[in-house]
Amino acid sequence: MIGGSAAGPKAAARARRLDQNAQITIIQKEPDLSMASCGYPYYVGGFFNERTKLLSTGSGILRNPDYYLNTKGILAKPLTEATTIDCSSKKVTCRNVFAGNSEFLVYDKLIIATGSITRMPDVHGRNLNGVTTLKSISDADFLRRVRDEGKVRRAVVIGAGLIGIETSEVLQMAGIRTTVVELLPQILSFLDTQLASLIEGHIREKGASVITNMGVTKFLGKNGSLVAVKLTNGMELPCELAVIATGVSPNVGLARNAGLRIGKAGGIVVDRYMQTSDPDIYAAGDCTEQYHLIIGRNRYVPYGDLANLQGRVAGENAVVGNEVTFPGTIQSGICKVFDYAAGATGLTEDMTKELGYDDTTAVIYAGLDKPGFMNGKTVISKMIVDNRSQKIIGFQCVGPGDVSKQVAQAAIAIQGGMAVKTLVNLDLPYAPPFAQAIDSFIACAHVMENKIKGRMRGITAEDVIQKLNRGDDMFLLDVRTPGEFEALRLGIGETLIPLGELRKRLNELPKHKTKEIIVYCKTSLRAYEAERIIEAHGWNNVAIMEGGIVAWTHSRAK
Amino acid sequence: MIGGSAAGPKAAARARRLDQNAQITIIQKEPDLSMASCGYPYYVGGFFNERTKLLSTGSGILRNPDYYLNTKGILAKPLTEATTIDCSSKKVTCRNVFAGNSEFLVYDKLIIATGSITRMPDVHGRNLNGVTTLKSISDADFLRRVRDEGKVRRAVVIGAGLIGIETSEVLQMAGIRTTVVELLPQILSFLDTQLASLIEGHIREKGASVITNMGVTKFLGKNGSLVAVKLTNGMELPCELAVIATGVSPNVGLARNAGLRIGKAGGIVVDRYMQTSDPDIYAAGDCTEQYHLIIGRNRYVPYGDLANLQGRVAGENAVVGNEVTFPGTIQSGICKVFDYAAGATGLTEDMTKELGYDDTTAVIYAGLDKPGFMNGKTVISKMIVDNRSQKIIGFQCVGPGDVSKQVAQAAIAIQGGMAVKTLVNLDLPYAPPFAQAIDSFIACAHVMENKIKGRMRGITAEDVIQKLNRGDDMFLLDVRTPGEFEALRLGIGETLIPLGELRKRLNELPKHKTKEIIVYCKTSLRAYEAERIIEAHGWNNVAIMEGGIVAWTHSRAK
Repeated sequence: MIGGSAAGPKAAARARRLDQNAQITIIQKEPDLSMASCGYPYYVGGFFNERTKLLSTGSGILRNPDYYLNTKGILAKPLTEATTIDCSSKKVTCRNVFAGNSEFLVYDKLIIATGSITRMPDVHGRNLNGVTTLKSISDADFLRRVRDEGKVRRAVVIGAGLIGIETSEVLQMAGIRTTVVELLPQILSFLDTQLASLIEGHIREKGASVITNMGVTKFLGKNGSLVAVKLTNGMELPCELAVIATGVSPNVGLARNAGLRIGKAGGIVVDRYMQTSDPDIYAAGDCTEQYHLIIGRNRYVPYGDLANLQGRVAGENAVVGNEVTFPGTIQSGICKVFDYAAGATGLTEDMTKELGYDDTTAVIYAGLDKPGFMNGKTVISKMIVDNRSQKIIGFQCVGPGDVSKQVAQAAIAIQGGMAVKTLVNLDLPYAPPFAQAIDSFIACAHVMENKIKGRMRGITAEDVIQKLNRGDDMFLLDVRTPGEFEALRLGIGETLIPLGELRKRLNELPKHKTKEIIVYCKTSLRAYEAERIIEAHGWNNVAIMEGGIVAWTHSRAK
Repeated sequence: MIGGSAAGPKAAARARRLDQNAQITIIQKEPDLSMASCGYPYYVGGFFNERTKLLSTGSGILRNPDYYLNTKGILAKPLTEATTIDCSSKKVTCRNVFAGNSEFLVYDKLIIATGSITRMPDVHGRNLNGVTTLKSISDADFLRRVRDEGKVRRAVVIGAGLIGIETSEVLQMAGIRTTVVELLPQILSFLDTQLASLIEGHIREKGASVITNMGVTKFLGKNGSLVAVKLTNGMELPCELAVIATGVSPNVGLARNAGLRIGKAGGIVVDRYMQTSDPDIYAAGDCTEQYHLIIGRNRYVPYGDLANLQGRVAGENAVVGNEVTFPGTIQSGICKVFDYAAGATGLTEDMTKELGYDDTTAVIYAGLDKPGFMNGKTVISKMIVDNRSQKIIGFQCVGPGDVSKQVAQAAIAIQGGMAVKTLVNLDLPYAPPFAQAIDSFIACAHVMENKIKGRMRGITAEDVIQKLNRGDDMFLLDVRTPGEFEALRLGIGETLIPLGELRKRLNELPKHKTKEIIVYCKTSLRAYEAERIIEAHGWNNVAIMEGGIVAWTHSRAK
């Protein structure tokens, strides 16, 4: 076992459970074992104070070499780096990180779980005090000290992926004025633009800044300490702390030098048994690339939950023979962003375009996670369906509501190969403290069904904004109540006709029945009813703004 | 449309959306329309104070006849009872509940959504003041007044199904000393005994009483008001309030008189199009019986979410022709019980026995919904798998953690026909604020896989208790830490050997390798490791107590 973070210890423990006689050794470069690295941001942010919780079992036992030896009968060697693998003589050469002395270990079966390395931008000044990553537990220690000392006033986080966003949240919540800088045009690239914009808006509401479409050219220092981050547009952001979170790459140097096959996505290539190109060597976790169940080819998906599942499979197969398989990933992910969560599973619409899947339908739906009378909170979902198979292939969700449940439901539906026809009638557990009578996920499938059957034409808020910018001739219709209109409105030239009055006030609609009418409400349920009424009276160019005002990300009048 | 609660208005609204010209009328016996009846307990309990929220749309518009007319173009006639249906002349005779005058309405298509009626026990004294049900909004009004006035000190709830348990919770929380009386040997029959016992224990912890295996023979009164409930064992429970919640039956009088087919489960028989035995008449909601997708025959499942989904299908087919189908139910349900939730989907083990499904495997698993360092809370799950297909056919979950998500995940997995092989490697959205790296649902599937493959033998806490009572010769082994043992222990003659010391202390195990050893820990993860160690050293009669101490429902030493 090379690697002692997630996949490695999981594989070792599984191997031990299935074979009480095997000699099992974990070689770990870091000083600690089996770190809950996904928990680092929450330790940094003070969600909990006991650092050892990251390194302990649920019953409070520190996962140190003694624990591995006594509880599991596994020899764990921390601070030991594997330097070479000799596949022909089945030997691994290791070096003690402190002492520098080398030794070699022989193996029958080897599992590589060397994880990932941070992709460091090639920028001057990376060694200044105050420039860090959030990759190791010592990074977490450093950032936690920064938080506790309360001296740092301004921070810049470079990269707005999962780790970047989680880190900016906890820094901002610690009272540090935080700016996130992202090279891409949007944050959280596992979301399509419109949903990412909603999260961006929420981050700004919480007082942090977001700069997209922007690179970093230099870390500026004074007396060896960071004083500012210089951006590609020449602007300087004064700060005492910079966290680099520009993503990770698979750590494959050792495997490559051993002659193992490395794939196009950059990771070690493994089959469904987690076996590498050498049948005596398995690999699992962030050092591998994963088979994507929808796309049908490998991608790099360095997620902690997958590492655990893969480790379990590799550990079993290494001692029992190739018995179990890990079929692959659909890239399910989620992160907390202040009072919101953002999650996705399967393909985004951007990914479908990139991959040339042109025959898909997408809808955005805004609803509540529970009934209004139980203080339900908003979840804004986007569902993507393959038109030929009518199967769900992607789902994203953001908002203050129970996003995690929505995305989990969708993830299982995708893995179950479920079609819209099935989703519209799902039998889910319902009671007011937990869900709506028609769960938001089912309601989203209802909208999808209407769209697929040509009963509604949807338009995204983004497309409406583009039309406005182009000066398109259209009639914008808000069908909410006057009270709602008074409290909040777009101010983009819309006409207010509450749905309850629409049948009587059809004369206020455009004279020409071919003129484009775009109708919206708070979410889009009432807009759908309005569309049906308007179309029944002869207008034939009606579209609903999907997700309604809830999904509007642009500035508005009120 | 006959019926204006859930399925009726949903069907009417759907029909209107798909046909702007149809004349649509809702006949409703009650004074109100489209009541969120599942919300009654929470209105009674003061979770919210505005009664109108139960009768209003999400945007705060009261769903009265004006709303239906103006917003939906639907004529709604409350306080109007349908008395007969003449299928040959396609006429419904109605009677105004107050005025008593009759009229008749003709139909092209009729949808029956007459709901359910409370099964009233045939017990003397039902008309005393203080004896009620929680079926109508006026019942809810009455109980809310009782709560607000604060005069009632003791209540008895008869029936420990969903409504009975929800009602006892809100009464007890309102400071009324509440006793639940149930005829069956356990509460919440959608759960198997062991999980139901955990909920029962929690209810008792909260100060309410639970009496099972007990009927009610009489309501005792004084001056026309209730003073006590008399039980079948002769005991009298003094109380000023009794709520009858002994379940509901389909309200099928009208349909039966019209000659429509009534099924063995007591409800109106409909096909997948929600069409009755008369092709011009559809039916939906609590008055129908539902096709059970696993059992393959009809059952009576009066759940609000199904009523809505069925209403939608009936409404569409009535105006468009038989276009869409409602495939059936798997009986997914959930309820809140103080700080716990209890949910189930698919078959229970009791149901599998009743139905003669003898080739199934069940496991109980206790885990956390989130990592310990994020204050994860316990969820105790039971999974049932059909051995031939290896597909999941049932799942139950109880506890203070996120039960709703666990049951929803399982419900989709069952409807997706997913096998254990797929469940063990599910790709679910993971981040510490939302889930464990290996979600509790996946972990439960892992235990199931181990059990199916013969790698572990499980025993339920109940079976252990039976063995103790019989005085079976066995060795009980607790493998938790001394600290955990000090804080909480069973005291049933167990030996403590912490897992970390087990390899060194095997000499403390029974001399005879065939002696039965029952091993447990807090949940059952460590017990599984212990079992593997013990078996590797020759003992061949080892079982794990499933769910560990967390799932222990009997009294204990500490």
